[in-house]
Amino acid sequence: MMSSMDLTFLGTASAYPSPTRGVSCTALKHEDGSIWLFDCGEGSQIQLMRSLLKASKVNKIFITHLHGDHMFGLPGLMCTVSQNNQKTGQLELYGPHGLRRFIRCSLQLSRSELTYNYVVHELQVVEEQLPAEWNTWTVNHDAEGSLHPNEHPGQQISPDEKGVWNLIEDDRFVVKAVWLKHRIPSFGFCVEEKPTQGKLNDAMLRSMGVPPGPLYGKIKSGETIMSPTGEEVRPEDVLGPPRPGRKVIIMGDTADSSQLMSVGLNADVLVHEATLENELLAQALQNGHSTPEMAAVLGKSLNVGKLVLTHYSQRYKPLGAVTEKDDKSVSVLLEQAEAVLGKGKVICAEDFLTIPIPPRKA
Amino acid sequence: MMSSMDLTFLGTASAYPSPTRGVSCTALKHEDGSIWLFDCGEGSQIQLMRSLLKASKVNKIFITHLHGDHMFGLPGLMCTVSQNNQKTGQLELYGPHGLRRFIRCSLQLSRSELTYNYVVHELQVVEEQLPAEWNTWTVNHDAEGSLHPNEHPGQQISPDEKGVWNLIEDDRFVVKAVWLKHRIPSFGFCVEEKPTQGKLNDAMLRSMGVPPGPLYGKIKSGETIMSPTGEEVRPEDVLGPPRPGRKVIIMGDTADSSQLMSVGLNADVLVHEATLENELLAQALQNGHSTPEMAAVLGKSLNVGKLVLTHYSQRYKPLGAVTEKDDKSVSVLLEQAEAVLGKGKVICAEDFLTIPIPPRKA
Repeated sequence: MMSSMDLTFLGTASAYPSPTRGVSCTALKHEDGSIWLFDCGEGSQIQLMRSLLKASKVNKIFITHLHGDHMFGLPGLMCTVSQNNQKTGQLELYGPHGLRRFIRCSLQLSRSELTYNYVVHELQVVEEQLPAEWNTWTVNHDAEGSLHPNEHPGQQISPDEKGVWNLIEDDRFVVKAVWLKHRIPSFGFCVEEKPTQGKLNDAMLRSMGVPPGPLYGKIKSGETIMSPTGEEVRPEDVLGPPRPGRKVIIMGDTADSSQLMSVGLNADVLVHEATLENELLAQALQNGHSTPEMAAVLGKSLNVGKLVLTHYSQRYKPLGAVTEKDDKSVSVLLEQAEAVLGKGKVICAEDFLTIPIPPRKA
Repeated sequence: MMSSMDLTFLGTASAYPSPTRGVSCTALKHEDGSIWLFDCGEGSQIQLMRSLLKASKVNKIFITHLHGDHMFGLPGLMCTVSQNNQKTGQLELYGPHGLRRFIRCSLQLSRSELTYNYVVHELQVVEEQLPAEWNTWTVNHDAEGSLHPNEHPGQQISPDEKGVWNLIEDDRFVVKAVWLKHRIPSFGFCVEEKPTQGKLNDAMLRSMGVPPGPLYGKIKSGETIMSPTGEEVRPEDVLGPPRPGRKVIIMGDTADSSQLMSVGLNADVLVHEATLENELLAQALQNGHSTPEMAAVLGKSLNVGKLVLTHYSQRYKPLGAVTEKDDKSVSVLLEQAEAVLGKGKVICAEDFLTIPIPPRKA
């Protein structure tokens, strides 16, 4: 029995971790049990241990941007899943140009040899996502020297003519990225499941005299077959409608996420940062962040199924941790997003919250 | 009222952090409230928040070696103490050659500007502390490119003719390091307080007609004065014996800590790793680690006041977390060290344990 696809939030704080909230790390668990992580702030490996997820099942990690609260947990997690040979298959990492240098530097200086191999695919940044002051401080983003002993060469991925970074396309998923405006280059990731084949109409096939077995397989693989009675059986006649794939968007920090309009329409789930409340809009924008209203307006334009808010300033306490009547909680943020999208369309993420993403109906 | 000098253990696990134990980080709090950290594994900033210590009081950090469980928490801690302008004065860091490169790379790629300045002093490694396989994998340990905007140039410190790295000498402390044998270059740090002046014999001075005031200050600063009755008053006649300074040794990972014999005699406290029990000696040595017996034999040779064990394999549960009768706890390690040093001379560190280091008697 396959488990469902779901999202688990392992850290929902902005800037720095606290005993009540981890920093950015979101796990997308697929039906086959494999896990893709989005961001990996300091302490993510401990949050994973506290959750029901197995770190050894992580086979892809996507880093939205290189701020410490989104990547300082990466070298430690990579070392820990190497302990006791937990992990074997290759780990694929995707993130902005500079990610390979950070990982190589951290793993080489700590002389960490791994039990598995890894590859870093870098997203080349574009002019539009750079802040005005970018060139006042020159930083070398290129990985130098020889590869780490467990590192395999990765790609440098540039955007296509529509401004979309095409990261993955296999028989199950298409993963794209778009740029976001932030204080440093930031990305939003869009994971789209491919449609799955409809069900074979068993009753119809039996009535045509086609027995279950190898012929069923041929039809599923798209072949037209002849039934034992000499009748032509075309796949489109006996296969139900395909089940549309799910679409999940997980964003980095952003003060402008409008680029998502090109890839994110009708997403089942949009995970969007909401660092500060609407009243602090000017401060949010100055720091490259969003308010609940900004997130909800985008969610509405994209016609998303659910908007999930995360990446809160530590000033907004988790609902369960409000102790004095003056404490602000995330409920402030929830209400502001609901004012745009309506009740039932917004979820405030909390550490260890799991949100199922049910299959779409055919 | 000055608080006492004490040691707080913020992480006592080896290899990787878990929900029940952090990785290496030990805080030495001085009487003036300032804090020196020894090692800073991933999550140390969260452990600091959970403790009674203020991260903003940290003004020196010593890194014993570059394994991730001893330094991956450093960039995050450095960024977090910069939040809300918590910290102002300069942060001084000491650690093996390569530390500057790791910090510069992490802070530059994450584009972390700080509210304070920092300086990294590197300990040049020596041939004796390199493992046989060291040259099979070439890693660049030099920090490259321009300084981080908050970075001031640091020293490269080589050992003196006795094989001792002299790190600090000011009016209060002398800090030295010696090399330890491990899988990568590792150091042990010896913090020695300078003797403090004895008390003025108030009764004797009054009987000689010397009134409290400026004359007292002159005597304390070493001057011989004339009493109002024309008598010569020499400091050595009216000052009590100086109070000897305390000595604290905090070690990195090691399978051979014999170099400590040159600096560590009569330490008040020796913090020594004991990763595995005596029965696993071969495995401990192979991984560059110590057993309780090894730690205790060194402690005995040094005539230390207390031996504190730490850096346990996660297989040894904290005493409070033993749930099944088959669970091994740190009590196994405690007993093995006590077998050498005797009861009352050994402490097993646990996360958040604070050990006072009382002043020595004059």
